[in-house]
Amino acid sequence: MDNRLDMIFRRRSIREYTGEPLAPQDVQALLEAGMAAPSASNRKPWHFVVVDDRATLCALADAHPFGKMLAHAALAIAVCGDPGVSDWWVVDCAAATENILVAAAGMGLGAVWLGAHGRPEREQAVRGVLGIPEGIGVLSLLSIGHPAESKEPRTQFDPARVHRGRW
Amino acid sequence: MDNRLDMIFRRRSIREYTGEPLAPQDVQALLEAGMAAPSASNRKPWHFVVVDDRATLCALADAHPFGKMLAHAALAIAVCGDPGVSDWWVVDCAAATENILVAAAGMGLGAVWLGAHGRPEREQAVRGVLGIPEGIGVLSLLSIGHPAESKEPRTQFDPARVHRGRW
Repeated sequence: MDNRLDMIFRRRSIREYTGEPLAPQDVQALLEAGMAAPSASNRKPWHFVVVDDRATLCALADAHPFGKMLAHAALAIAVCGDPGVSDWWVVDCAAATENILVAAAGMGLGAVWLGAHGRPEREQAVRGVLGIPEGIGVLSLLSIGHPAESKEPRTQFDPARVHRGRW
Repeated sequence: MDNRLDMIFRRRSIREYTGEPLAPQDVQALLEAGMAAPSASNRKPWHFVVVDDRATLCALADAHPFGKMLAHAALAIAVCGDPGVSDWWVVDCAAATENILVAAAGMGLGAVWLGAHGRPEREQAVRGVLGIPEGIGVLSLLSIGHPAESKEPRTQFDPARVHRGRW
């Protein structure tokens, strides 16, 4: 693995956190990374709902079927998109989500991507907790904190998934 | 902008290239970065079609309405997904695409994301050039090379897109 790409390989799904809060400048850096993503025709259809209060984090933990770790996270970010701004909002918001995860790894934080869009019941549950308007899509919910578990950097490179010249 | 996240902010859409080919280890590193992306339930629904011959690059340039730069690129990668493996393939392949773009920036390469999935005529045109099976989705087409234009690192941070506590 190319060591210039270390932060990409260090991005792992981290679900255990120390309880230490995030510094405001770290929250800002995560949002700057998310909004540095590319978007179709540079329409930037994204919105970010940032949550650090314990009651709302616990409500999100209950709202998402795989979200238990949110009860102990320092931060949640719901990455949302406006289909009225761009019909590419799903891939654009996925790129923004991945940027935030790679940034978290680069800052020594731990994070995990919880899928929402594509499962209407999850999207509605998150929408309800966070007051996200109908008509705005909820692409993902990120759980973020200082890591209390460690995982090895990795690629999952598989030569069977590479087609040279043509399929 | 947090300088630990430099490669994220240096990822810009680069459409002009020097003509220098990519070293094989750089192609390998891009693919390792792509496959380091997260995927729902770790199903890894992705496939990568890697093209470096000029005739196929020119055919791709003709096939995609915004793909002219491919005629002068060192490499194209079509990021594809198997909906039979995961119904999350679109967001998973978008994350893999973004990892490749951030990796390219981290390696001093230039690249641009050309959207395909969501525009059936583009998806079919790329499918035809590369022999991608029906039933496999074509999420994106990446044009990659050594950059012959330079753009400033940037975030596009906009406080109006941040909602604190709830929407």
